[in-house]
Amino acid sequence: MHHDKHRAFRAALSSGQLFTAMAAHNPLVAKLAEEAGFGGVWASGFELSASHAVPDASILPMSSHLEMCRAMAAVLSVPLIADVDTGFGNAVSVSYIVPQFEAAGASALVMEDKSFPKDTSLREGGRQELVRIEEFQGKVEAACAARDNRDLCVIARTEALIAGRGQAEAIRRALAYEEAGADAILVHSKQKTPDEILAFVAAWPGRAPLVLVPTAYPRLTERDIAALGKVAVVIYGNHAIRAAVAAWRSVFRQIRQDGGLLGVEPGLPTVAEIVELQGDAHMRSIEQRFLR
Amino acid sequence: MHHDKHRAFRAALSSGQLFTAMAAHNPLVAKLAEEAGFGGVWASGFELSASHAVPDASILPMSSHLEMCRAMAAVLSVPLIADVDTGFGNAVSVSYIVPQFEAAGASALVMEDKSFPKDTSLREGGRQELVRIEEFQGKVEAACAARDNRDLCVIARTEALIAGRGQAEAIRRALAYEEAGADAILVHSKQKTPDEILAFVAAWPGRAPLVLVPTAYPRLTERDIAALGKVAVVIYGNHAIRAAVAAWRSVFRQIRQDGGLLGVEPGLPTVAEIVELQGDAHMRSIEQRFLR
Amino acid sequence: MHHDKHRAFRAALSSGQLFTAMAAHNPLVAKLAEEAGFGGVWASGFELSASHAVPDASILPMSSHLEMCRAMAAVLSVPLIADVDTGFGNAVSVSYIVPQFEAAGASALVMEDKSFPKDTSLREGGRQELVRIEEFQGKVEAACAARDNRDLCVIARTEALIAGRGQAEAIRRALAYEEAGADAILVHSKQKTPDEILAFVAAWPGRAPLVLVPTAYPRLTERDIAALGKVAVVIYGNHAIRAAVAAWRSVFRQIRQDGGLLGVEPGLPTVAEIVELQGDAHMRSIEQRFLR
Amino acid sequence: MHHDKHRAFRAALSSGQLFTAMAAHNPLVAKLAEEAGFGGVWASGFELSASHAVPDASILPMSSHLEMCRAMAAVLSVPLIADVDTGFGNAVSVSYIVPQFEAAGASALVMEDKSFPKDTSLREGGRQELVRIEEFQGKVEAACAARDNRDLCVIARTEALIAGRGQAEAIRRALAYEEAGADAILVHSKQKTPDEILAFVAAWPGRAPLVLVPTAYPRLTERDIAALGKVAVVIYGNHAIRAAVAAWRSVFRQIRQDGGLLGVEPGLPTVAEIVELQGDAHMRSIEQRFLR
Repeated sequence: MHHDKHRAFRAALSSGQLFTAMAAHNPLVAKLAEEAGFGGVWASGFELSASHAVPDASILPMSSHLEMCRAMAAVLSVPLIADVDTGFGNAVSVSYIVPQFEAAGASALVMEDKSFPKDTSLREGGRQELVRIEEFQGKVEAACAARDNRDLCVIARTEALIAGRGQAEAIRRALAYEEAGADAILVHSKQKTPDEILAFVAAWPGRAPLVLVPTAYPRLTERDIAALGKVAVVIYGNHAIRAAVAAWRSVFRQIRQDGGLLGVEPGLPTVAEIVELQGDAHMRSIEQRFLR
Repeated sequence: MHHDKHRAFRAALSSGQLFTAMAAHNPLVAKLAEEAGFGGVWASGFELSASHAVPDASILPMSSHLEMCRAMAAVLSVPLIADVDTGFGNAVSVSYIVPQFEAAGASALVMEDKSFPKDTSLREGGRQELVRIEEFQGKVEAACAARDNRDLCVIARTEALIAGRGQAEAIRRALAYEEAGADAILVHSKQKTPDEILAFVAAWPGRAPLVLVPTAYPRLTERDIAALGKVAVVIYGNHAIRAAVAAWRSVFRQIRQDGGLLGVEPGLPTVAEIVELQGDAHMRSIEQRFLR
Repeated sequence: MHHDKHRAFRAALSSGQLFTAMAAHNPLVAKLAEEAGFGGVWASGFELSASHAVPDASILPMSSHLEMCRAMAAVLSVPLIADVDTGFGNAVSVSYIVPQFEAAGASALVMEDKSFPKDTSLREGGRQELVRIEEFQGKVEAACAARDNRDLCVIARTEALIAGRGQAEAIRRALAYEEAGADAILVHSKQKTPDEILAFVAAWPGRAPLVLVPTAYPRLTERDIAALGKVAVVIYGNHAIRAAVAAWRSVFRQIRQDGGLLGVEPGLPTVAEIVELQGDAHMRSIEQRFLR
Repeated sequence: MHHDKHRAFRAALSSGQLFTAMAAHNPLVAKLAEEAGFGGVWASGFELSASHAVPDASILPMSSHLEMCRAMAAVLSVPLIADVDTGFGNAVSVSYIVPQFEAAGASALVMEDKSFPKDTSLREGGRQELVRIEEFQGKVEAACAARDNRDLCVIARTEALIAGRGQAEAIRRALAYEEAGADAILVHSKQKTPDEILAFVAAWPGRAPLVLVPTAYPRLTERDIAALGKVAVVIYGNHAIRAAVAAWRSVFRQIRQDGGLLGVEPGLPTVAEIVELQGDAHMRSIEQRFLR
């Protein structure tokens, strides 16, 4: 039932148009991202971990990621890109989880070349250990072989820049992963300016389209990225959870200050608006047709 | 490990001080509610359903509510009040789920007298069927008997006003539930002014403390409620998810308009702030002590 | 990825050959049932409940049934028939769960006309309440409308005989469910002889094929059933869990008596045989290809 | 609610009496083990994996192990010993999972010194990589520090003999784990005779009690083990799943041969017996008291 979305995402990789994906950590965020006009949704492991108030360090079990992918794909008409972190183990692990994420409705999987358990990418001083290139090639090949629908895209993410290994290593890894069958390459950077990423894109000799995540270097716009010519997808990695934290802090503070709700009500959507987002109209049509 | 929280909540019921609880649908919201100074957290079924983009109509399985309670209780130092809806079935069902919510760390359970599957309370034109009084008394007794720790509070919620049954029926039900062993009575109203609720509180002849949810009548402040003398707990039922929806819509719209992140960044907490909320300091101390 | 199995089961319904399904409560049982030559596997709610040591009375959450279907379908090459009990609620509930069981890989769903929460069928003195005919027709229609793949079969199960309502009522209900779109009719009986069931089959005026579960009347053989001409499927409902209980009791008793393992070893498969059933060869081929 | 069981297990470690635990992979098996007179239940990862028809190689997510522990502890009056494999990652992972297994009701945790993802121990030619001694000491310390109830026992399992590292290494590791705080040491061997294990026990210079798993060397009886004086616990690791496989194969084969049930019925417990094991009497008393 997700085949159309899979085909749409695969087509987007070679369309020449930049595909945009917004991070989400639950189906409501995902639905609002689709409503806002993003091309797809990024099932962000960082956001999911943050929403559970635990570090993005392989602490949530695989099943939590999987369950959230299922729930999000179920309400989306646009493609869902699953963040499978390191693949939750080795190439054997990858072989067993890919069919599960496929059944969950993901149109693409992003797998990174860090060792399990991982540490989050954007924090200073984190543990950033990469697995050997051949080991990760095996994981990419295992992922490609394990999918049932050939339209499911396998995106290899290199953390070489995050780990301070430099551009030559990043290019070497990205090429190796392309050779192993990756449908696209995500290259991540935590530098505050886009220079490092721009240099990578300029130097990229491969045929696989690139994926960027401009959280650390927000100056780079979609127009800039589109102009580079080699990037097919931009992922906005954690703005949903950050926006929500700001909102929660502000509303909670005001309710406590006021000792009541009157001050916050004007700035909030009504309960009826939330009910509508929950698919109330769909449920009422089911009631009409089938409840007797 | 949750015993202190259980005791704190039970003590709050008879303390003469108004206990405030904020709705949450994930552990991060719960943690921010505690940080903001709420006395406890309300594991709202409405919010959980909304976050999954499905109606609040017994569509999510019991296990989703339970799992979220577990995850929230694990990060909270303040009591968690679980919303167990109708008890997910009859008195037999209640007997089997109460120990599970207790093990999940809930300090109190709120169970309502609607029939399963329920419909949401605040929507106009919903299906609001109540079970018979004696049937619900049996469910309250079953809940009380099924708890292991006597400090776990069972709160009976009557939807008599929501269902348009009038105040006499609401009082009759509340008294019957108190007789069955309920530690407190939650009475819900969807009238836009507090008149209906105030009349109920004034007329309440029971000894059990009351719980109010002033979503529909936000004018009523904590000071007003405290002055009533019979109300022990106020629950803010859905402001976390509503605040987040406003934030998501606004941030998503701007990113799409701008085709980039620069416009939204100034209004968002930094990634470092989110990392801190994820308990990064705790994890780094574990690394220091135990990673070798 | 389960499409071939769906087509196979649908074809079986009109093939003129009796399709046999064995109850299973975990993927290993399911795999052994396939290995033994059964046409498919029955994801029995009774067996699942029994394996959890709780009554078959809507006590396990829907998610437990769903998760087990997923795990079983993942290792099967033959169709899986999901036992969705009463549909876990009303027609609205059904509309939301059918896509989930479909995504889990079930090729057919069996839904019964008892009210939720149900009681088990074969026990003397259980609570056997049926929902109204029109209400269950609505649930069958909802199930049919909610499936994505038209090959997914919806089987309506009437408990009219179990509930002591008599044959006329059973026929009336079965016809009504066929009219509502059911692809087959399961009629259940707890009489110790097949007379009641044989009378039903003889009197059945509908076009929909029938499904029998001869647990209570084991005398009726597949040859007998095939000769009836109207029955497409026979389900063996709980022999896996019963066989296992006998084995566990016997082996446990002997180990305790002997104070050791030597007495039980000769009657048990070797660890290597279990390892093979776990798909060891498949995993080792993954290792060979992808672990570097 | 599991405190008495925790205390009982801790007391058993120093009681001078041999404590026996039987492997289980679901609550029904666990209940039958208790009924048969075993002192406790071993939540075997091997059995759980086998029941899911996947290799015992870190393929099931942590959540599956956890959920099964919860379900088993809920029906047991005797202690449950959880098999947490390698701890599902590093010392950080351990810190986050121990409170979850504790909340699930486990009275003891067994953690092994292999690297994640692990391979099963008893298979010839498996991948048997051990983590460094100091690394595993950190994991043991992390587990001890993460428990809330001091009666929860942390058992360190060394796979040094399984990995072919020899007895000196096994002793060195066991001593290091005791020093790190392990409450007991499980030493595993796949030799077909008990010689290797007997040599280890004889040479063991530590104070921590030992745990043996005589699957590979079934000749060693409880009487033999008790006579050794240093062993507190014997775990029977996989006889439940092996017994069941034999039973399933036999019963399935006969039903297929006979084309019916008559041949297998005499050897099976009745449905009523299964219903009783499901706790029917308990549920009926709930009905009597609370269903109105």
